[in-house]
Amino acid sequence: MHKIMNNERFRAAILGATGYTGLEVAALLERHPRIRATHLTSEAAAGERVPGSRQQYVRAADVPLDEVDVVFTCLPHGESGAWSLRAHAAGARVIDLSSDLRDGREGAVYGLPELWRGAVRGADLVANPGCYPTGVLLALAPLLSSGLMDADRPVMIDAASGVTGAGRTAQRALLFGEVAEDYRAYGAGNTHRHVPEMARGLSVSAGRAVQFVFTPHLLPVRRGILETMYVPVSQSVTAADVSAAWRSAYGAEPFIDVWEDGLPGLRATVHRNAVALGAAAVAGVDAPLVLVVASFDNLLKGAAGQAVQNANLMLGLCEHEGLPR
Amino acid sequence: MHKIMNNERFRAAILGATGYTGLEVAALLERHPRIRATHLTSEAAAGERVPGSRQQYVRAADVPLDEVDVVFTCLPHGESGAWSLRAHAAGARVIDLSSDLRDGREGAVYGLPELWRGAVRGADLVANPGCYPTGVLLALAPLLSSGLMDADRPVMIDAASGVTGAGRTAQRALLFGEVAEDYRAYGAGNTHRHVPEMARGLSVSAGRAVQFVFTPHLLPVRRGILETMYVPVSQSVTAADVSAAWRSAYGAEPFIDVWEDGLPGLRATVHRNAVALGAAAVAGVDAPLVLVVASFDNLLKGAAGQAVQNANLMLGLCEHEGLPR
Amino acid sequence: MHKIMNNERFRAAILGATGYTGLEVAALLERHPRIRATHLTSEAAAGERVPGSRQQYVRAADVPLDEVDVVFTCLPHGESGAWSLRAHAAGARVIDLSSDLRDGREGAVYGLPELWRGAVRGADLVANPGCYPTGVLLALAPLLSSGLMDADRPVMIDAASGVTGAGRTAQRALLFGEVAEDYRAYGAGNTHRHVPEMARGLSVSAGRAVQFVFTPHLLPVRRGILETMYVPVSQSVTAADVSAAWRSAYGAEPFIDVWEDGLPGLRATVHRNAVALGAAAVAGVDAPLVLVVASFDNLLKGAAGQAVQNANLMLGLCEHEGLPR
Amino acid sequence: MHKIMNNERFRAAILGATGYTGLEVAALLERHPRIRATHLTSEAAAGERVPGSRQQYVRAADVPLDEVDVVFTCLPHGESGAWSLRAHAAGARVIDLSSDLRDGREGAVYGLPELWRGAVRGADLVANPGCYPTGVLLALAPLLSSGLMDADRPVMIDAASGVTGAGRTAQRALLFGEVAEDYRAYGAGNTHRHVPEMARGLSVSAGRAVQFVFTPHLLPVRRGILETMYVPVSQSVTAADVSAAWRSAYGAEPFIDVWEDGLPGLRATVHRNAVALGAAAVAGVDAPLVLVVASFDNLLKGAAGQAVQNANLMLGLCEHEGLPR
Repeated sequence: MHKIMNNERFRAAILGATGYTGLEVAALLERHPRIRATHLTSEAAAGERVPGSRQQYVRAADVPLDEVDVVFTCLPHGESGAWSLRAHAAGARVIDLSSDLRDGREGAVYGLPELWRGAVRGADLVANPGCYPTGVLLALAPLLSSGLMDADRPVMIDAASGVTGAGRTAQRALLFGEVAEDYRAYGAGNTHRHVPEMARGLSVSAGRAVQFVFTPHLLPVRRGILETMYVPVSQSVTAADVSAAWRSAYGAEPFIDVWEDGLPGLRATVHRNAVALGAAAVAGVDAPLVLVVASFDNLLKGAAGQAVQNANLMLGLCEHEGLPR
Repeated sequence: MHKIMNNERFRAAILGATGYTGLEVAALLERHPRIRATHLTSEAAAGERVPGSRQQYVRAADVPLDEVDVVFTCLPHGESGAWSLRAHAAGARVIDLSSDLRDGREGAVYGLPELWRGAVRGADLVANPGCYPTGVLLALAPLLSSGLMDADRPVMIDAASGVTGAGRTAQRALLFGEVAEDYRAYGAGNTHRHVPEMARGLSVSAGRAVQFVFTPHLLPVRRGILETMYVPVSQSVTAADVSAAWRSAYGAEPFIDVWEDGLPGLRATVHRNAVALGAAAVAGVDAPLVLVVASFDNLLKGAAGQAVQNANLMLGLCEHEGLPR
Repeated sequence: MHKIMNNERFRAAILGATGYTGLEVAALLERHPRIRATHLTSEAAAGERVPGSRQQYVRAADVPLDEVDVVFTCLPHGESGAWSLRAHAAGARVIDLSSDLRDGREGAVYGLPELWRGAVRGADLVANPGCYPTGVLLALAPLLSSGLMDADRPVMIDAASGVTGAGRTAQRALLFGEVAEDYRAYGAGNTHRHVPEMARGLSVSAGRAVQFVFTPHLLPVRRGILETMYVPVSQSVTAADVSAAWRSAYGAEPFIDVWEDGLPGLRATVHRNAVALGAAAVAGVDAPLVLVVASFDNLLKGAAGQAVQNANLMLGLCEHEGLPR
Repeated sequence: MHKIMNNERFRAAILGATGYTGLEVAALLERHPRIRATHLTSEAAAGERVPGSRQQYVRAADVPLDEVDVVFTCLPHGESGAWSLRAHAAGARVIDLSSDLRDGREGAVYGLPELWRGAVRGADLVANPGCYPTGVLLALAPLLSSGLMDADRPVMIDAASGVTGAGRTAQRALLFGEVAEDYRAYGAGNTHRHVPEMARGLSVSAGRAVQFVFTPHLLPVRRGILETMYVPVSQSVTAADVSAAWRSAYGAEPFIDVWEDGLPGLRATVHRNAVALGAAAVAGVDAPLVLVVASFDNLLKGAAGQAVQNANLMLGLCEHEGLPR
């Protein structure tokens, strides 16, 4: 464990620094007053210069894990977790951005500060939430814990994500020529990798299993996620009640914008580490519903921004240090 | 009423020929073997040459309505219906592409051939369906009439449309600088203009009122609509049952593609006069649901293509004449 | 050599039918009244069904080359030429869409019908021009042969192409996440593969070497090429003279649009087998110049459309058969 | 004239705060440690709340011009200059972002700090450069003043700009439905409004008139300008000489990136207040040429960022205060 001195600048390693989330962590740390990325890894680009910097990419195996204070593991799912555990064993604080440790294995703490800040603050090993679950959980947790939401009927979660959420590995389905002018569902019918993670988070918030259907779509934009949720509510619950529950839960949170009226679009949060939440009434149906929209940048609050937020907490720094609001 | 001679080429007027739907009708008629656009109107561009043609735009008031065989009225909502009635009174067959006559007023027939072909065939005055309702009704009508769909629970209809659906009138919200890199819901909570039209069509198909929630979104693409529907079904109804119901209803239809497996994306139907339908199972929820996706080109099967399809029927021509499949 | 009977439908093979040009040839042949694609090849997708068809992809080696009338070779550069020669030896008429045979080797005829139609008509083996050279040669050849253009000063050719011109092979630089919101030069300083092909075509037209600088850029659109050329002209030559030279050269050509005033944008020609040409005066410089713009669809007149046009000529069909104008 | 105290926060008014440049100035000032936007004007939105703020928009006539330290005038060309003079007369330091005062009238200083910093530092009234001239002048001035560039032959400047450069006023030509999937030249042949401004700047740098041809194109992206220049050079001048001249001129400049090899694309500078410059050799032409590319964000270094940079200089602040590098 490292002693932290006042105004010390922490040394960070970014494992997998040429993918979209790794690039974004690096960009954030460039402007971070207290954390400096001393090691950026890339197996393919090892030895090449980091663009706009005097540093060179190194291989992950060449990072002295015991000499850095914090490690951001941005490697592919399946590979990331093992590196995170190795770094953790070497004494570093670790934020793993893959889905490998999100089920809590190996004592990893689920790093969604607005819901479970206390656990993050004391943690050495944090599993950074998936992009889709971040918006879903921040929107629905207060409605579940307050009892506004009816957990007996399923909530439909229709989501659309920019393509950087799918990673930077070359594959035909993600070529510009395939994605431009298109829009399509994928991982439909609750088959997406994030479904178990959402299920865990929702059931913790509700104290019981929560029924939901999740349908992600691929949007022809680079960044941003919009989640439109058809929330079953108790009789007589209004959109205003939903907003009030959010304000009550998140009043002082710097990274959550509760919209008083209107629904946020993608643009409201792109390039910011924030989730915007809005609610609208639904007319003409017997079963009481409130329409809820969550908007956020999949690379910031949905990945790298949240990872830095977690790092700030783990290192005892001001939580919003170095983050664009 | 005009006598129709063999191989005669019908004369058509397009009222409002510089909006997106009017332009598309004109483009279709250019390649149509039996219908020729003899009059294209534009109040703003009257006297100017139609691009790529020797014709000039004229004012709507200068069209000799009694000398054309068919009129496509592509004027703004609120203005269009009156012109359609005028043309109808002058003896022309009329297809109105606005929402003005879709409630059946003045004897207008709702022109969705795959569901109500007989009525269209004998009609002189047709209200061309709205873009969103076209996909919703074609997807759900067979499920309602066959009893597969449970009309006691609401179906959630999450839709995304390219911007040409919003028309070509200059407004800030539709500037490239506003729409690009964005995605947003609008007309949420069953407040969109197409909701009553959907309600009518669904209740006719079901023989009773149908509960639904419709949320359209604005997509940063030029053309195409994708509708993702969370369809409540009777216990034990599978995605395969849904496909089978569509095949049974639409087996011979040239403009409906039933996907055997997988869900269609936008690209599958853009630039074609077709609706593609796909169904997928939903795991992990108690209430039985099937996920349904409809994809179509808002300017073709959602507007101009369907209008020409209706015109073909009204004029006794082959229904697919001049239409890209 | 095959005897051609009246109204016979020719059998075509498309070698490499899952790349962008192969897909486009297949789409054109679907609507072609006289040529039918009987064999579509894909090494990766062999045995899978061709979308929207009852055919299956086969391996190139499994095509009975002596049983087809015409072969469209749409394979990668370096691989394509050998297959074309093999098909040619087997007796098929061949159009090679790669750059392999464009230098005239093996007796291949350069297939730019508007400039060298006679040669194409009698040919059995045609090298289909590159996308960029198509626009450059069609724009400049009449200015060179008429002496309007001053071949002693270099013409600057600034070009922008949609990404489908770069092929459909998965590579990071062509991911949506890389190309969207970006615009960049590549192959600058006359290093692009198409430069020798342009040099050949220009020098044939001029009867001498022609100085030029070619700079392609990657445009965040799917299809379309716009070439902006700074054409040095003889003293007193005007933009109107340039247009007149085009009209004189191309008066009856169905696939060339000479714009009388204004410069064509990309949209004017996308989804059509046409090149649009426009000229504008340049004020404020001593050296006489005319600005010339060529616009065309890289997949149609720049590749597949031109290939079908060549096939029509080679098979003695009407040149515009099956081509969208 | 205001006395400036240490750590005082300057009050700024933004006249025209709902256009793209006004919005961008406001966004920059939100994070600026020393300048605070106390008044944001909009005639259309007066009385409405500024999004994400507790302020309200006011009418321009209601701004107490004598109580603010600095005024950013972001009004339409033709209107802006008069307001700037009014604010200047009232004692404010003024940066006018329109083209109204760029010819030096009324003693306005042309605010391109990297070339004429001294003049800006002492100025009370600054004309902020146009977006296109910013890149052209920063790229070419060092080549002209060092004599590397041959001013006897014209330099071709082929430019492409994102649509936010055209303003936020609703007009059909800027709708998403018109701009998406398109690319087109406009203001061709040296007819664009920025041509006289470029001519002035280039001739000041060269000490003589400079021949050039400028062709802007509209790019389907929101922000960013890429300028590709065909620079005539003295015999034997290489791309490396060009880079060396830039490094010599701009060595310590925080907002200019000289690329050692390769040419910058749009993405290199978007969302940063920087111009990236790159040079490449041109092969195969007799007349010596170097290809030069300038990339920058039209809203930052091309407008609002440069305006804040000018304000920093005028107010005696650190020049890069509050600016994203």
